[in-house]
Amino acid sequence: MAVSLEMTIAIKHVKNLLVGRPLPSERLEHERLSKKTALAVLSSDAISSVAYATDQILFVLGGAIGLAAVNYVVPISGVIVGLLVLVALSYRQTIFAYPHGGGSYTVARDNLGVGAGLVAAAALLTDYILTVAVSISSGIAAITSAYPQLHDHTVLLCVASIVLLMVVNLRGVRDSGAAFSVPTYVFIFAMIALIVTGLYREWSGHELATITAPLKVDPVSAHQMTFPTGFALAFLMLRGFAEGCVAMTGTEAISNGISAFKQPAQRNAATTLGWMAAILAAFFMGTSYLARHYGVMPTTDETVLSQLGRHVFGTNAAYYLLQYATFALLVLAANTAFADFPRLSGILANDRFMPRQFSARGDRLAFSNGIIVLALIAMVLVIVFKGDTNALVPLYAIGVFVCFTLSQSGMVMHWLRSHEPGWRWRMMLNGLGAIATAAVALVQVTTKFTAGGWIVCLIIPLIIVMLLKIHRHYVQFAEDIKFTGQATILPLHHTVVVPVNGITKATAAALVYATTISDEVMAVYIEVDKRETKVLQDAWDEWDIGVPLVVLPSPYRSVLRPLVAYVESLRMVSPGELVTVVVPEVVPRRWWEHFLHNKTAFYIRTAFLFKANVVVTSVPFLLGHSYRLRDLLEHDPDVDAVESLPRIPFRNSGPRRAS
Amino acid sequence: MAVSLEMTIAIKHVKNLLVGRPLPSERLEHERLSKKTALAVLSSDAISSVAYATDQILFVLGGAIGLAAVNYVVPISGVIVGLLVLVALSYRQTIFAYPHGGGSYTVARDNLGVGAGLVAAAALLTDYILTVAVSISSGIAAITSAYPQLHDHTVLLCVASIVLLMVVNLRGVRDSGAAFSVPTYVFIFAMIALIVTGLYREWSGHELATITAPLKVDPVSAHQMTFPTGFALAFLMLRGFAEGCVAMTGTEAISNGISAFKQPAQRNAATTLGWMAAILAAFFMGTSYLARHYGVMPTTDETVLSQLGRHVFGTNAAYYLLQYATFALLVLAANTAFADFPRLSGILANDRFMPRQFSARGDRLAFSNGIIVLALIAMVLVIVFKGDTNALVPLYAIGVFVCFTLSQSGMVMHWLRSHEPGWRWRMMLNGLGAIATAAVALVQVTTKFTAGGWIVCLIIPLIIVMLLKIHRHYVQFAEDIKFTGQATILPLHHTVVVPVNGITKATAAALVYATTISDEVMAVYIEVDKRETKVLQDAWDEWDIGVPLVVLPSPYRSVLRPLVAYVESLRMVSPGELVTVVVPEVVPRRWWEHFLHNKTAFYIRTAFLFKANVVVTSVPFLLGHSYRLRDLLEHDPDVDAVESLPRIPFRNSGPRRAS
Repeated sequence: MAVSLEMTIAIKHVKNLLVGRPLPSERLEHERLSKKTALAVLSSDAISSVAYATDQILFVLGGAIGLAAVNYVVPISGVIVGLLVLVALSYRQTIFAYPHGGGSYTVARDNLGVGAGLVAAAALLTDYILTVAVSISSGIAAITSAYPQLHDHTVLLCVASIVLLMVVNLRGVRDSGAAFSVPTYVFIFAMIALIVTGLYREWSGHELATITAPLKVDPVSAHQMTFPTGFALAFLMLRGFAEGCVAMTGTEAISNGISAFKQPAQRNAATTLGWMAAILAAFFMGTSYLARHYGVMPTTDETVLSQLGRHVFGTNAAYYLLQYATFALLVLAANTAFADFPRLSGILANDRFMPRQFSARGDRLAFSNGIIVLALIAMVLVIVFKGDTNALVPLYAIGVFVCFTLSQSGMVMHWLRSHEPGWRWRMMLNGLGAIATAAVALVQVTTKFTAGGWIVCLIIPLIIVMLLKIHRHYVQFAEDIKFTGQATILPLHHTVVVPVNGITKATAAALVYATTISDEVMAVYIEVDKRETKVLQDAWDEWDIGVPLVVLPSPYRSVLRPLVAYVESLRMVSPGELVTVVVPEVVPRRWWEHFLHNKTAFYIRTAFLFKANVVVTSVPFLLGHSYRLRDLLEHDPDVDAVESLPRIPFRNSGPRRAS
Repeated sequence: MAVSLEMTIAIKHVKNLLVGRPLPSERLEHERLSKKTALAVLSSDAISSVAYATDQILFVLGGAIGLAAVNYVVPISGVIVGLLVLVALSYRQTIFAYPHGGGSYTVARDNLGVGAGLVAAAALLTDYILTVAVSISSGIAAITSAYPQLHDHTVLLCVASIVLLMVVNLRGVRDSGAAFSVPTYVFIFAMIALIVTGLYREWSGHELATITAPLKVDPVSAHQMTFPTGFALAFLMLRGFAEGCVAMTGTEAISNGISAFKQPAQRNAATTLGWMAAILAAFFMGTSYLARHYGVMPTTDETVLSQLGRHVFGTNAAYYLLQYATFALLVLAANTAFADFPRLSGILANDRFMPRQFSARGDRLAFSNGIIVLALIAMVLVIVFKGDTNALVPLYAIGVFVCFTLSQSGMVMHWLRSHEPGWRWRMMLNGLGAIATAAVALVQVTTKFTAGGWIVCLIIPLIIVMLLKIHRHYVQFAEDIKFTGQATILPLHHTVVVPVNGITKATAAALVYATTISDEVMAVYIEVDKRETKVLQDAWDEWDIGVPLVVLPSPYRSVLRPLVAYVESLRMVSPGELVTVVVPEVVPRRWWEHFLHNKTAFYIRTAFLFKANVVVTSVPFLLGHSYRLRDLLEHDPDVDAVESLPRIPFRNSGPRRAS
């Protein structure tokens, strides 16, 4: 017990240091975000996709058709941008229809039923986790592209970044917004500089550098590098398109997070969504265009953006600024998930589909448990996939498009029911989006299934089963504890049993407590050695405190079994009888001293846990002074510090209660 | 809590399966050993040394002087046998002087003081652990000598053997004696056959095989293989002697284990000691003589005994019988430690130098905790040293000779004080033994220090410090809980606080209990959301059970802090005031459901653990039927199985206690 206590104190100190002092609930409203900050916090997932989306198209195509891949990157990117515009317009409608946020889960649940809602929820939870894993590994790739000597430490750098994000988020949502606004705008500035300079160079014919980094292809692909035709070419283009669709991940973040916006939240969110889509489209097309122009292919060591930076800027301060900003933005993208995963978990917990611990706001008003769980799972993913973005991306985007489809199908139903002004064309817009994203979801699953997509196809159903099982438990639980009777609460007949092993202060403290809570108290001694019984019995008779000593023989040396049998026999006398077992529990001063004492109190509690009408109480007897009280109370705004309290006393006189 | 409970049930099932049903204490006397069985159980450590002692001499000498080593093995063995006779005679005197056993620790403590006793105890504990590690790795070497293909699985085989030994010993001492008697006598038979056949072959000149296994020396030694002279030669011989002294380990086992003998225990023990010394001396000399005759050198892959077996018998059934018997005897040698380590731990625990858990006999009358701890530490050693006997042996024997010296010095003091008939020559015999073994102990430390001996020289003092710290705790503890007052146990004034979060069956059960144990009951609600408070307050007023509802605002959303502050404020009213916090605790049916509920009861208990005069009681509310009661009671000889008990009831009528 006290081991846990000391750990609690230590954890509390570390926690206050890292996470900050608790904030009162009334400050919740003030933690909302301005549009500029919201763009930084909630759009970074989508915008940051430019750091790896072009790479993915080229990576997949390049493996099959080599440098010829660059010829296809621009049209594929164009199709994706078209899809992006459609989806963004759809979500704009969702923002106004659902002012409190909640995104795909809420929309699907409300309009298509709980089943569709849970599919959306499972897909979203999966994708938030992958957002963290993919963004962080891609962010570290930006760093290792600039500093190749760090390449061997990829996994460590990824894990460290996730830990940092977790701590920042546990501090609360406004702090994290403020901390990350600057780097996002630096990235936007750097990207504009890159694209404008690159285009200017092309236009003016000033090409400073030539392409130096050759495409690295694995030997197996190299053998097959005959140019595909017909179905094979179509499948390849679809695969490239599917991987490129990773650019659209994060589009739903703003409509999920309306409640984080300053008022008027809906209008602000819609404006921010527009800005986000525009920036993303421009950067993605710009990157793909420059990649084609410079004939850049991604390698396992260097990203497309890094290579473009070296070509356009040269390896100078501007280049490093771009890399740092890319890293910072990707960390911020992961941060989007740290805002949304806990929020969705909280909504699911309120709907009783997730453990209720996810619905509680922590000391700093963030959903602490969701943040910690997200960080842990993402760390596992990064470690298992060794921080390799290219291995993680095929798992990504499948869930996103499942959500897009469900969300927009839900909106179709919404317009059908609401018949608001303009519902027809709104419904058609969402319907178009639903069909398009459903088609893309199908393309995602079929083209990427063997490349890792099967993992997601397995995990999403598992998550749904888990959500349903949790829900069933809570429903049953609510039923089980429902109190329907008009019964008056009345005391039961009550006997107290105190297991003793001698006459000590600990025993005496337990007996004081026992006589306080009942008039029928029995001390019980478990006899292992008859000679010791005689000694105790004599001392007990001499003590003469009016509490009888019952001796229970224990031929098998067990303390628990005779005690359980005796208490059961007391209970059998009358079925309404209530028995309390009061156990003297010695609490040592130092952690290692716990190993020197039997955990009798714990075992007795466990033995009686499933026995009806038996309550086990331990009366702690503290060895030494009541130390470290201040440690426990430190940083505790609710309590005036209490310096030092007396140990359990024995009142030698006083009125005995009338009975 | 219930997680622990389910684990308890599972562990109990596995335990009963492996270890057997509990035995009553009265069967303790019947678990004693006959002379023949005792020779098998207690002498095997000493006798089995022939499986590696000759190897060690040749291994050390061979590394320096190659095959010439065989010329020195017989004289060195002769000196060791002389020492053995001296030590055996000394211990024979100890057996008669100390009828209850206890060996070096008891003798040193009683005659030389607690300090010397603790040195002996630490040395003995170390040696028992090394007995297990060395014997098991040597036993597995006997098997891998016969089946070289198993060589790669050495560590796994060692660990499996230790686990087997642990389980057998947890079953109790007689079972293990019976299980192991046969192999010991087979080994004795096989060794006699080996030596007699070998000697006959030598005498008759029938040499069937020539030496095939060459000495493997490591390259470094090979370069230095100039024959040493003067001091270097003397040091080498001393080192060989020191390593060969490992043959004497286990000599003290019988005098430690007198209490395991059938009556007359002392006479039986003395006879057994004589037989043991004679068998050991004959086998050791025989092995060393044959090794010299056949020019056998140990290799890392094959032991001396195995090579001798192949030469004398050929690789036939007789050879395999010898190897199996060697393995079995070495397992039995390890078993000696499994008898002695827990017994010494028990004695030390009774003297309050070890945790008291070591003094309790388990269900099968063995000292379960000592057995388990020994097995775990030995496993760690075997894993760290990769099951290599040659790496483990230098750690061994140092402690043994420290014990020999202390034990015999103690006996010198004993005779000086007792002045029994013949005390003079008895004292001289023990004095001679003490001087000789002290000299050998010194040789052990100096010659083997750099080869691993330093580890033992570090660990023995550490163990002594640990024993002393434990002792100091228990002494202080006994002082702390000593009850000296003539105080009568009288009840205190008592208030009960019940934290509630709604009107549920769990709350109602807690309130039934609260009103049973006190007339002053307050329900406390922690307010996080004011609207919810209003709803509860109205429902509470309507319920009208005569228990006031106190609402505590919690601006920081913590349940614990306002509760702690409130209870403290109650306690401040009058210092003698006793407060019980009665917490409704929901106990789910399945293990994973625990993750769906806050561990509020646990946190509340922890928060109040160091607060004086506050007792925390949880009233368990069982979800679903009171299941698995039979599982818990199964195999429980003290309790008549109770089929199914009612859940916590609400008595709707009944007399309220007079107050």
